[in-house]
Amino acid sequence: MNAPLKSPPTPLKFDSATATVDQAAIAPFPNSRKVYAQGSRADLRVPMRAVSQSDTAASFGAEPNPPVYIYDTSGPYTDPEASIDIRSGLGTPRLPWILERGDTEQLAGPSSAYGQARLDDPALAALRFQLQRTPRRAVQGANVTQMHYARRGIVTPEMEYVAIRENLRRQDYLRDLEASGPMGKRSAQLLGRQHPGQSFGASIPDTITAEFVREEIARGRAIIPANINHPEVEPMIIGRNFLVKINANIGNSAVTSSIGEEVEKMTWAIRWGADNVMDLSTGKHIHETREWIIRNSPVPIGTVPIYQALEKVNGKAEDLTWEIFRDTLIEQAEQGVDYFTIHAGVLLRYVPMTASRLTGIVSRGGSIMAKWCLAHHKESFLYTHFEEICAIMKAYDVSFSLGDGLRPGSIYDANDEAQLAELKTLGELTQIAWKHDVQVMIEGPGHVPMQLIKENMDLQLDQCGEAPFYTLGPLTTDIAPGYDHITSGIGAAMIGWYGTAMLCYVTPKEHLGLPNKDDVKDGIITYKIAAHAADLAKGHPGAQIRDNALSKARFEFRWDDQFNLGLDPDKAREFHDETLPKDSAKVAHFCSMCGPHFCSMKITQEVRDYAATMNVSEQSALRQGMEVKAIEFVRQGGELYKKV
Amino acid sequence: MNAPLKSPPTPLKFDSATATVDQAAIAPFPNSRKVYAQGSRADLRVPMRAVSQSDTAASFGAEPNPPVYIYDTSGPYTDPEASIDIRSGLGTPRLPWILERGDTEQLAGPSSAYGQARLDDPALAALRFQLQRTPRRAVQGANVTQMHYARRGIVTPEMEYVAIRENLRRQDYLRDLEASGPMGKRSAQLLGRQHPGQSFGASIPDTITAEFVREEIARGRAIIPANINHPEVEPMIIGRNFLVKINANIGNSAVTSSIGEEVEKMTWAIRWGADNVMDLSTGKHIHETREWIIRNSPVPIGTVPIYQALEKVNGKAEDLTWEIFRDTLIEQAEQGVDYFTIHAGVLLRYVPMTASRLTGIVSRGGSIMAKWCLAHHKESFLYTHFEEICAIMKAYDVSFSLGDGLRPGSIYDANDEAQLAELKTLGELTQIAWKHDVQVMIEGPGHVPMQLIKENMDLQLDQCGEAPFYTLGPLTTDIAPGYDHITSGIGAAMIGWYGTAMLCYVTPKEHLGLPNKDDVKDGIITYKIAAHAADLAKGHPGAQIRDNALSKARFEFRWDDQFNLGLDPDKAREFHDETLPKDSAKVAHFCSMCGPHFCSMKITQEVRDYAATMNVSEQSALRQGMEVKAIEFVRQGGELYKKV
Repeated sequence: MNAPLKSPPTPLKFDSATATVDQAAIAPFPNSRKVYAQGSRADLRVPMRAVSQSDTAASFGAEPNPPVYIYDTSGPYTDPEASIDIRSGLGTPRLPWILERGDTEQLAGPSSAYGQARLDDPALAALRFQLQRTPRRAVQGANVTQMHYARRGIVTPEMEYVAIRENLRRQDYLRDLEASGPMGKRSAQLLGRQHPGQSFGASIPDTITAEFVREEIARGRAIIPANINHPEVEPMIIGRNFLVKINANIGNSAVTSSIGEEVEKMTWAIRWGADNVMDLSTGKHIHETREWIIRNSPVPIGTVPIYQALEKVNGKAEDLTWEIFRDTLIEQAEQGVDYFTIHAGVLLRYVPMTASRLTGIVSRGGSIMAKWCLAHHKESFLYTHFEEICAIMKAYDVSFSLGDGLRPGSIYDANDEAQLAELKTLGELTQIAWKHDVQVMIEGPGHVPMQLIKENMDLQLDQCGEAPFYTLGPLTTDIAPGYDHITSGIGAAMIGWYGTAMLCYVTPKEHLGLPNKDDVKDGIITYKIAAHAADLAKGHPGAQIRDNALSKARFEFRWDDQFNLGLDPDKAREFHDETLPKDSAKVAHFCSMCGPHFCSMKITQEVRDYAATMNVSEQSALRQGMEVKAIEFVRQGGELYKKV
Repeated sequence: MNAPLKSPPTPLKFDSATATVDQAAIAPFPNSRKVYAQGSRADLRVPMRAVSQSDTAASFGAEPNPPVYIYDTSGPYTDPEASIDIRSGLGTPRLPWILERGDTEQLAGPSSAYGQARLDDPALAALRFQLQRTPRRAVQGANVTQMHYARRGIVTPEMEYVAIRENLRRQDYLRDLEASGPMGKRSAQLLGRQHPGQSFGASIPDTITAEFVREEIARGRAIIPANINHPEVEPMIIGRNFLVKINANIGNSAVTSSIGEEVEKMTWAIRWGADNVMDLSTGKHIHETREWIIRNSPVPIGTVPIYQALEKVNGKAEDLTWEIFRDTLIEQAEQGVDYFTIHAGVLLRYVPMTASRLTGIVSRGGSIMAKWCLAHHKESFLYTHFEEICAIMKAYDVSFSLGDGLRPGSIYDANDEAQLAELKTLGELTQIAWKHDVQVMIEGPGHVPMQLIKENMDLQLDQCGEAPFYTLGPLTTDIAPGYDHITSGIGAAMIGWYGTAMLCYVTPKEHLGLPNKDDVKDGIITYKIAAHAADLAKGHPGAQIRDNALSKARFEFRWDDQFNLGLDPDKAREFHDETLPKDSAKVAHFCSMCGPHFCSMKITQEVRDYAATMNVSEQSALRQGMEVKAIEFVRQGGELYKKV
């Protein structure tokens, strides 16, 4: 059927008996400790990373600098107390919460035909993760989604967890600052200060409470992706009134990559800040690869089930059936996938709208469904069976990520009829999912020039009832293959500011090849920048603390603190060392840009010392002089104030 | 006086007798030819790069794809007909135009004391560029600025040159498309199409004429930086109604780098698209380094003369005098520097406003002047002698780049009192410069969160009479040392969209060290992306042609064309080859992301073929169905159309 493979696939180099964690994933971050913020119950401990700082040097005022708390997605891997063995997977902190609710049952084994068949296949022994437990499912008639609980007024441990997580111990940090010495109060005011945001209608409270989380989930404005079969997860929230999150895509293809590499990419991605990971594998052993990833992932895992369904029919889209797809959903839900991308908005009548596009349909899921629709001359089973899909989702609490199968693949195709028609349908499907209390987010483009980005956000908010928006970039130009993390990072920062809740990363390899670990890291860091820039612009409370702390370290020549507070301490240190490798340079009050003979930061300190010598009336004269007499006075050779 | 150097400086490894061009600067771009668009006179030939493409494969319609014309900053280095010897410098295409005007005279030698002293110093022989001509200056009473000519109604060859350059032979490209075959007209419509822009008040005509250029320069809304002593320059224009430009900073410091490296950085920077280069050297041999750079630079060169003046007083800011500064201006103007950054807006009364900042004064020029002001208790000589500086500028046509000495060095300090007070003064100085017909652009920040960027642009347009804005980034967060090309690329794209005319690049080494060639390239490509994204968003006529052509190549699996039309063909090819190194993969209709068994692009072609089989009434029924009957029809199992 298909063209022969031109390059042989990399052979699978994976053995479940000897698999080990990537050492890079468990290396400690410099000057950092894993700390846990305690919740209302003993088993509710929310991880954060505390970055210690050195004291300010005497010449700058000799102040202590308390640790800064950073949102930590890296899971137990960076906890020296945790014992890590990827063959047994992570601990299951959520399990007691799930069991307590008493609305689920443990199954005898996988209830999907495919899941059972894979389990029974002895040829897969060497690849298989040795899971010691069977799947859970809602008891007959129960709905186990976080949205369902929220709408019944129940604050779950998951909701409390994310509330604590979002606040990042900001109050503790400011209190530590206040207590840090004679200048403490001033420091707390200084370092806690931030610019008012422009939130475009988002309304982020000063402190996130569990009750606020519940309300947001109940009204569909936020989701906590947390399958009951993923008890390893450290809950996180996606919504416009919370910190902007990022997603990293991993996954093998028919051409390359192995299970071990994908687990490595996952642990690598969360180390650098991926809040979610999508496993987009399309090659062999998708089922086994996914099991290894989920069992070792403290972050929610998303998939596109149609990819695997397609493998099951040997790549022939027209052979797909609702039954095969349904079995795939159950198979993956019982493994613990936290959200499914489902391209149910690709309607038959939208497909011909793509014919006049420059780049047609670029979503894999979208084109699979388009092909199916055309081959059968009817609406896809994703659309016609949507309510049955909802029934599966609520039995495991799998969230929808309603896929944008008709997203534009080029600037030319941005915001076109096909894209916007599909978006409207996604809004209608959202209402159906919400009727079932199933959590929903909406996927968005793609390739969009800057002036058309806001329209995407505005239409999505309007048509999808403020369900969280989850966008791929968007790329703001097509002319930079090899740098699409940057072309899209620009669009991602902007759409995050406008209200997008989660940004799906793009790596430098986009359009060119599968990302390796370096590409994954470049993609993550770029998207952490975009998400944080968006948090600052929205005015997310406390977002500026890290910027302020880092800038203060920079100003005070605390080089190590500057590196350690950054998104990538390793790279910052490496760059600095390239020019000034000596340890002494790390405490030097100069850098290689200006050299030791002239330094603007040093001069600034002299200005500060000078200003401190002015008395109140001199300061007042200065102000008045500025506002009233202005330039004439100076031109006459006048001197505005004298040094005391 | 100063702290001893902790690391020894790299020894100068440069010998003027054996200096050679960097081979990387003269390598041809793949499938590209240097072409010249002929102007109204024989010696007016405007360079562009024509990127040839292969024909579309038969399965996609077998169309020819005419060459795309790309703005080319790389100068004669990429012209195989040009003979390059950096010891003799570039040719002097502008010289006849300057001579014809008859308003300049050739001097017997440098008229600055310092310039003459350097020429007379035998110890510098091994470093000195062997310039065979003496400087020119306006004859007594003449004003040789492009603004002066423009205001007198004169269209100079420089103005015609930039007009041709801005249009990028768009009409030729579209005409070639139309003539390319039976589908030519459709192709021209398709590939010439672009989204309407949001220009925020910029008004870019469909075709740039020389007369339009003249008008824009006359009213101060654009500048052509082109010193009469830089006849090697290929003129370019900076203004909000033209393509957004980028600047690359190079220059050695007291700690590192040599003359040869700086020339290499310059040729490397223009290869990748730097429209301007600033030589920010602060170490030894600034004068000689600059001479080598200018003589070999086809792009305008800017400097910050106060840096060199400071070296002349051994780094003691308080020892600076107007006389030393004046001699430095003349020295550099006679070498051919095209614009001077002058921090004349740092007024005495603004300095104490910076005392409460988190990061004080971070501009080197700003802090030098602040220190001088404090030491002398009076306004700086830059401010008090501003009209005398104008007199020098107009004798050589050096443009002002009015420096933002009080720009914010952190998110915390963005848009503060000190910054905005200085901006207002820069606006007042602009009016004084314009009184002398001296060209002006205004420098801008710095570190600014996204929601505060537009205020910078709006205030600048308002207070500086629409003089071109030239910003450093701005960086949209402080938390990513090692990635500040990206934190700032986001801000640069946005402020470029809002109206900034030139974006000063930031490299990954910002805050950490001096950039090497890799960093220079990363900075340039990031800023080319930002500038182009801004052009698209403003709706610059023809800006989308390159995106459209590249996306079409991508869709049609013309891998080489996709690489070659991109900003960095080398990187795109390298990334693709990492996964699929074979040559056969370059013509394969699949890529490593999905593998050969499934490809959304292939399916799209099937959709297209399918849509082509529908007749007019079926298409019409489809439209109506979508708009009127919508979902109900489909839910009833209806089929909207049948394949013929």
